[in-house]
Amino acid sequence: MAAPIDFYFDFSSPYGYLAAQKIDALAAGHGRTVDWHPILLGVVFKQTGAAPLTTVPLKGEYSKRDFARSARFHGIADFRIPPRFPIPAQAPSRIVLWLKGRDRELAARVAKALYRAYFRDGVDISIPEAAASVAAAEGVDAAQARAAVDDPAIKDALKAEVEQAIARGVFGSPFVFVDGEPFWGIDRFDQVERWLATGGF
Amino acid sequence: MAAPIDFYFDFSSPYGYLAAQKIDALAAGHGRTVDWHPILLGVVFKQTGAAPLTTVPLKGEYSKRDFARSARFHGIADFRIPPRFPIPAQAPSRIVLWLKGRDRELAARVAKALYRAYFRDGVDISIPEAAASVAAAEGVDAAQARAAVDDPAIKDALKAEVEQAIARGVFGSPFVFVDGEPFWGIDRFDQVERWLATGGF
Repeated sequence: MAAPIDFYFDFSSPYGYLAAQKIDALAAGHGRTVDWHPILLGVVFKQTGAAPLTTVPLKGEYSKRDFARSARFHGIADFRIPPRFPIPAQAPSRIVLWLKGRDRELAARVAKALYRAYFRDGVDISIPEAAASVAAAEGVDAAQARAAVDDPAIKDALKAEVEQAIARGVFGSPFVFVDGEPFWGIDRFDQVERWLATGGF
Repeated sequence: MAAPIDFYFDFSSPYGYLAAQKIDALAAGHGRTVDWHPILLGVVFKQTGAAPLTTVPLKGEYSKRDFARSARFHGIADFRIPPRFPIPAQAPSRIVLWLKGRDRELAARVAKALYRAYFRDGVDISIPEAAASVAAAEGVDAAQARAAVDDPAIKDALKAEVEQAIARGVFGSPFVFVDGEPFWGIDRFDQVERWLATGGF
């Protein structure tokens, strides 16, 4: 069986949200699975000197317009910028990493639920209780999910995940690897699709 | 007749080169013409704090790979990073602006020829004589083209073009407006296409 697609995302990334709605079907269409990697762009940006998109002159204003237009373009009609944006993504990221150690499919389902809670319903998933509650709605034990946010081993696992991402060259969200080939942005999903179909071009 | 599409580009921008090979056909498919606007991203970047793409940690390495892959993806097989890259784009930009005042179709044809000379043939079009020579191959008087590079009125016209671009929110290359709607990047051409087809979405 072909290797999984590596999918890196920050829970505070609008394009990551749009990509998260697409990646499983894209992979499945080519007999692939997806390995979901939550990361923290704030840490990555210290490496690259980048600033959060919406704070950049000119680009910031454009980005807000492009988030909404890209959501419509990709058929995701219920996107909205949450009341609190951006957020630090430690809590939801740790819950997903904790779940990955137990049940990878459940972890992916919870990741998608967390993204929808944030970018569709406006829930502030940076609050550990709020993130745990979203996981609970997917059948996860809420108390255990809440405890995972403060678990030193899970904290270390997230740090390691971010460091590995940087070591692989990840500098944005979403970021995908197909058999080692890197693709940044949902606007490279057309290239990802062709790469999967042809084995490279 | 519908308004022209505004196409902003920097002659040193690889994605601008790829877009320049596509924009006329894209527009014509929807009964539109293209208004070609050469700009200087260096001036724009002072406004946004951005750095040239290839100098950014992580992103720089990725970008070089993505330039070549995106060229192949878009069917532009002869793309290569020129020996001197990036370059200041004053000379070719001024020649195009000078020509726009005389013959807009010729100006667009010369713009495409200049881009090909740089990104296909490796000609350093930042050298006024080299840029004038490319224009001459399209039927322009070489001495007049060369003189335009040093013409104070043309210099001022380029400055004004860049200032107007910034005032409209342009922060990258390529950058397109369709009936006032802004699109950044050749990776938004799918959205440009749908916008032209539907009048907005």
